[in-house]
Amino acid sequence: MENLKYGKIVEFVHLLISQSYGGRNDLNFVDATCGNGFDTLFLCKEAGPSGQVTAFDLQQQAVERTNTLLSTNLNFKNYNIIKDSHEFINKYVSEKVNAALFNLGYLPFSDKKITTNPSTTIKAIENLLPLLDTDGRIYITTYISHDSGTEIKEITNFLNNLNKSDYNVINLRIINKENNPPELFIVEKN
Amino acid sequence: MENLKYGKIVEFVHLLISQSYGGRNDLNFVDATCGNGFDTLFLCKEAGPSGQVTAFDLQQQAVERTNTLLSTNLNFKNYNIIKDSHEFINKYVSEKVNAALFNLGYLPFSDKKITTNPSTTIKAIENLLPLLDTDGRIYITTYISHDSGTEIKEITNFLNNLNKSDYNVINLRIINKENNPPELFIVEKN
Repeated sequence: MENLKYGKIVEFVHLLISQSYGGRNDLNFVDATCGNGFDTLFLCKEAGPSGQVTAFDLQQQAVERTNTLLSTNLNFKNYNIIKDSHEFINKYVSEKVNAALFNLGYLPFSDKKITTNPSTTIKAIENLLPLLDTDGRIYITTYISHDSGTEIKEITNFLNNLNKSDYNVINLRIINKENNPPELFIVEKN
Repeated sequence: MENLKYGKIVEFVHLLISQSYGGRNDLNFVDATCGNGFDTLFLCKEAGPSGQVTAFDLQQQAVERTNTLLSTNLNFKNYNIIKDSHEFINKYVSEKVNAALFNLGYLPFSDKKITTNPSTTIKAIENLLPLLDTDGRIYITTYISHDSGTEIKEITNFLNNLNKSDYNVINLRIINKENNPPELFIVEKN
């Protein structure tokens, strides 16, 4: 990953996950917003044949795109793609989670009117927290454009108040760009 | 590094450097504030016998502590510890730099009245920028306590204005803690 840039948040999240969990064969990952499936595919490869990835999306189109991408790029099946809201994550996932990804906003190359929304996102995070393993982390990539920053603001307010003994909440921003680059939050078990 | 916490900024910087440069034998690192030498030792190990580390500190005590730490923990010598201000970095370093570290504030276990100061720090960063290799990055760990946040503010103002085409400037903060945890800035060549 020598040429990878930290300033590309999606790539940076992949670098962190590779570094923090890479090489293990007991991984349990969650993709809370599978979208077109690129993060899901990355997680499936990192988890390997003996790991497990559970991915969520409300949109049928996203579930189909992801299933197609995974089936054509993996020669094993370690994933379960669920067409439901990520707020119900604990209906589908019961084992401890090492890493969960959120990539918020709208589904790329699709109807931009359908977006994630803060209350559902926060509900999903709340339901994920008790599932985190001791090395567990939630990586949340947020965007300002789909709702003028409302989601970022509400997520910030929620995460600011997470118990400081139990969790570290990290906020990562690119500060020298004008065009509203994505902003990253990481919640880690302390 | 499974049990490492991102919320411990100094460890997190080590994780990033290991992941981004680990395993190479042509590395050129700079420790702009060698202090007690722990970052310098880490960089020397990462660079290996064929790499090069140049470290700076104004205080004789810091130079001595670092030399002692390195000589007792390494069976090779790939370092040069310089007793001078890091603002004169380009007097001593001419080859392209892969990673440079700043750990600001005062020297731990020493006179807390002697601290880094914003104008010298910014001068050092300015002199480092032209030396950065294509994968080059400057990692700056900052503290609020030694000057009530003046240094963080001035560095932020300086870095905010770095050319957005040439550099990505990343700011990383822990947002759910009360006791002023360190804050990280990363400047990377775009």
